[in-house]
Amino acid sequence: MVDVSDKPVTARRAVAEAEVAVSAETLSLVIDGGGPKGDVLTVAELAGVMGGKRTSELIPLCHPLPLTDLVVGITPDRAASVLRVRAEAATTAQTGVEMEAMTAASVAALTIYDMVKGVERGVEIRGIRLVSKTGGKSGEWARERGDADKPRRRPGDRTKGRIGGGRPRKSG
Amino acid sequence: MVDVSDKPVTARRAVAEAEVAVSAETLSLVIDGGGPKGDVLTVAELAGVMGGKRTSELIPLCHPLPLTDLVVGITPDRAASVLRVRAEAATTAQTGVEMEAMTAASVAALTIYDMVKGVERGVEIRGIRLVSKTGGKSGEWARERGDADKPRRRPGDRTKGRIGGGRPRKSG
Amino acid sequence: MVDVSDKPVTARRAVAEAEVAVSAETLSLVIDGGGPKGDVLTVAELAGVMGGKRTSELIPLCHPLPLTDLVVGITPDRAASVLRVRAEAATTAQTGVEMEAMTAASVAALTIYDMVKGVERGVEIRGIRLVSKTGGKSGEWARERGDADKPRRRPGDRTKGRIGGGRPRKSG
Amino acid sequence: MVDVSDKPVTARRAVAEAEVAVSAETLSLVIDGGGPKGDVLTVAELAGVMGGKRTSELIPLCHPLPLTDLVVGITPDRAASVLRVRAEAATTAQTGVEMEAMTAASVAALTIYDMVKGVERGVEIRGIRLVSKTGGKSGEWARERGDADKPRRRPGDRTKGRIGGGRPRKSG
Amino acid sequence: MVDVSDKPVTARRAVAEAEVAVSAETLSLVIDGGGPKGDVLTVAELAGVMGGKRTSELIPLCHPLPLTDLVVGITPDRAASVLRVRAEAATTAQTGVEMEAMTAASVAALTIYDMVKGVERGVEIRGIRLVSKTGGKSGEWARERGDADKPRRRPGDRTKGRIGGGRPRKSG
Amino acid sequence: MVDVSDKPVTARRAVAEAEVAVSAETLSLVIDGGGPKGDVLTVAELAGVMGGKRTSELIPLCHPLPLTDLVVGITPDRAASVLRVRAEAATTAQTGVEMEAMTAASVAALTIYDMVKGVERGVEIRGIRLVSKTGGKSGEWARERGDADKPRRRPGDRTKGRIGGGRPRKSG
Repeated sequence: MVDVSDKPVTARRAVAEAEVAVSAETLSLVIDGGGPKGDVLTVAELAGVMGGKRTSELIPLCHPLPLTDLVVGITPDRAASVLRVRAEAATTAQTGVEMEAMTAASVAALTIYDMVKGVERGVEIRGIRLVSKTGGKSGEWARERGDADKPRRRPGDRTKGRIGGGRPRKSG
Repeated sequence: MVDVSDKPVTARRAVAEAEVAVSAETLSLVIDGGGPKGDVLTVAELAGVMGGKRTSELIPLCHPLPLTDLVVGITPDRAASVLRVRAEAATTAQTGVEMEAMTAASVAALTIYDMVKGVERGVEIRGIRLVSKTGGKSGEWARERGDADKPRRRPGDRTKGRIGGGRPRKSG
Repeated sequence: MVDVSDKPVTARRAVAEAEVAVSAETLSLVIDGGGPKGDVLTVAELAGVMGGKRTSELIPLCHPLPLTDLVVGITPDRAASVLRVRAEAATTAQTGVEMEAMTAASVAALTIYDMVKGVERGVEIRGIRLVSKTGGKSGEWARERGDADKPRRRPGDRTKGRIGGGRPRKSG
Repeated sequence: MVDVSDKPVTARRAVAEAEVAVSAETLSLVIDGGGPKGDVLTVAELAGVMGGKRTSELIPLCHPLPLTDLVVGITPDRAASVLRVRAEAATTAQTGVEMEAMTAASVAALTIYDMVKGVERGVEIRGIRLVSKTGGKSGEWARERGDADKPRRRPGDRTKGRIGGGRPRKSG
Repeated sequence: MVDVSDKPVTARRAVAEAEVAVSAETLSLVIDGGGPKGDVLTVAELAGVMGGKRTSELIPLCHPLPLTDLVVGITPDRAASVLRVRAEAATTAQTGVEMEAMTAASVAALTIYDMVKGVERGVEIRGIRLVSKTGGKSGEWARERGDADKPRRRPGDRTKGRIGGGRPRKSG
Repeated sequence: MVDVSDKPVTARRAVAEAEVAVSAETLSLVIDGGGPKGDVLTVAELAGVMGGKRTSELIPLCHPLPLTDLVVGITPDRAASVLRVRAEAATTAQTGVEMEAMTAASVAALTIYDMVKGVERGVEIRGIRLVSKTGGKSGEWARERGDADKPRRRPGDRTKGRIGGGRPRKSG
């Protein structure tokens, strides 16, 4: 673990994303809440929040720290035939929460996979990456979006049901 | 998770209770330390403390936070033929510890059940509820006790052996 | 821990229940999915399943064992103004799963409390108890229902959305 | 959880993969063992193994089950500028280990990200997917590799140091 | 993890020990149950059992497996001014439980340290080692006792209160 | 748990050590990285860090707290035929981190045992003890070294590869 004993306590926030590529049929099943294991989106969002809270247990050199916010939202994107996961974490601490956001997004994506693998085993998770961070010595950071990234979020099929609270946020 | 990033850090404390209804024979066995699995009260108090520390892993939208106090005491009540569990938790944080107290009381009660189920399988846990809380924006809260609640604690058979330390406290 | 090394491996199943007493207003809010933290029933059912899987970590003398089934369902009962939690666990092992069912029911009930405490802090959890068990040396056991227990389940407002799968089962 | 009580106990094995896209400089740093947090590959492989063991805690509807094998290997691919993660899990149980392999691969990939984010924050994890599975009612399954997948593994820079044992296996 | 997929399922048992060297005053305090944090022996025995159940989470390459027995007993030895910890674990599985016994003994010893460090900070834990194992391909193994080991257990001050059940066993 | 609600938040640091006595052959194997399960030192150091982060889950009356530093280093000592484990933990909190350092050292030592038990089953862990602590009401404390302790650290065979970061530190 990096020694952060002498770092100041500051407010920190990070956002990460992931996407789960599924077939059009699977996507419809998920949107309709009709998968073999129940409501995929709510279960996966909740799993993401719970997984994000356990980041320091999973990632060997992550510091255990309190969290002040952790929210996971999943938005289906019919055009791209993917489910987009967005995770946002915050703390007031001596180190940041990038890994909490990344872990939350990953666990949500894995849970989607688990919930639909009975109907489509070849589903792929991709694009797990940091979107932005604020706070700490290195300050603000935001991913620059190239062409490949452009159509990341479209007007979504679903905005309610986000697990957790966080601040009002546009999805889609 | 509710975003508590902008809440002030304040001292917070919460008390919860539970009761486990057992037969007179089981109660005597517990008081005498003679159950089939050993000293029920100490084991259950300890389990309550350890369970309370893991609240944020169990309750999906609970914030992980440090604890400054967590104490569980169990008092046998022969008149009512119940074992009364009382759990008290404290922190200095941006959110409260009601769930830590509730979880600690519940895990202690479940452990009592586990320890005596070999002699009485039909034991029932009831009355898991918040007794009081202090600190935070909503300030003090204390349960009002109606008639049904009156004889909640009687002069106890047992005051020592409370797991944890906490502040001096009357049981019974 | 009781030494079960010489016990035979048999199929075992246990059912436990709990109830959460809320006001009529809170009950309506829960049924409508409109609580301050989102869909109470789905979140609580899921938390119950996840909590039940961690029984051996919480209950000191429980054996760690694989589970073949674990399902939690919550049914609102408007007449009694309670939310009824039912948890069912199964394994093929040398010891039983009563504690897994009891723990799952308890964690689901605690999660309901957490989800509604912002609107009604005095909510009480009660009636956590074993309903039945099968398998093992002690064989079948089922709680006898006295008058007090009679109206335990009524035609429910909700039967879908049960977290997990299990076998088809009447709720309500 | 899907009820697997009546399924037969069979030997099951699953392989999953993930890749972490890094810059050429970061890749060199990782291969030379010179990242700011130490030996990235060993730490990440180990984290993958430990994370995979906790799959049933992370993925809500996964069954807790014993594992007979779990091995994670990471192979740098200079041509593609990625680190390829391969995770293999096995059990003798009533349900499969796809999620254990997927989770192990994901946690290893997240750990790589954590270990190099100090030098390259924009690293992306992609291609988390099942490669193959054997055992169980659905029998064998293997991903078909299209053109996009062709250059998946090249003669690797590194074959030793794989965490875990497993059976001899070609990497690269 | 070593691949044990092709190993037979056999009954396995292992015993480990540890000792905690304390001053005569601390030993008396422990025997009298008068330490600043309560009943040291019961708490430490229980912590040992609970810690032993989590061996596969702590020891990276240990297989997660069900346990059929896990018992920890602590015996004060006034002559040697030590507390002797003995842990015994059993399973019916494809791999052994040496690490479960070793981990249980270690966590019990660490807990003793925690409970008495307020009165004697320099306490030392020593002699954590395997005593015997049975079952598996390598069969029986038992530590040979040299002169240095002779006075390992004397007629004990305490035989009751062992956490867990196990089979009848002489302590002291 | 001792109630630390009224204690001031101060910077705290603790160092603990352990040693693992092995044969000369095993020691050589470890130094050469040739054990049956891979690189013993890196795996054990990492396990120590991860175990230390979970101290409050293992030690019943330990407070859960954030950590700002946790580093484990293992140094082979050929003259004494031991592997010396040194663990250092830091926090800024209302209570100290002695148990985190002690637990990290213990888990690292247990992991060494696990990694070499296939070649030498009788390995013994000894000398788990606090070396020093700073911060908090009781202030500084450092173990006095008698003759028996003198040759604790010799010019080491290995100084790199320490898991974690911490501050520059002489090993050996």
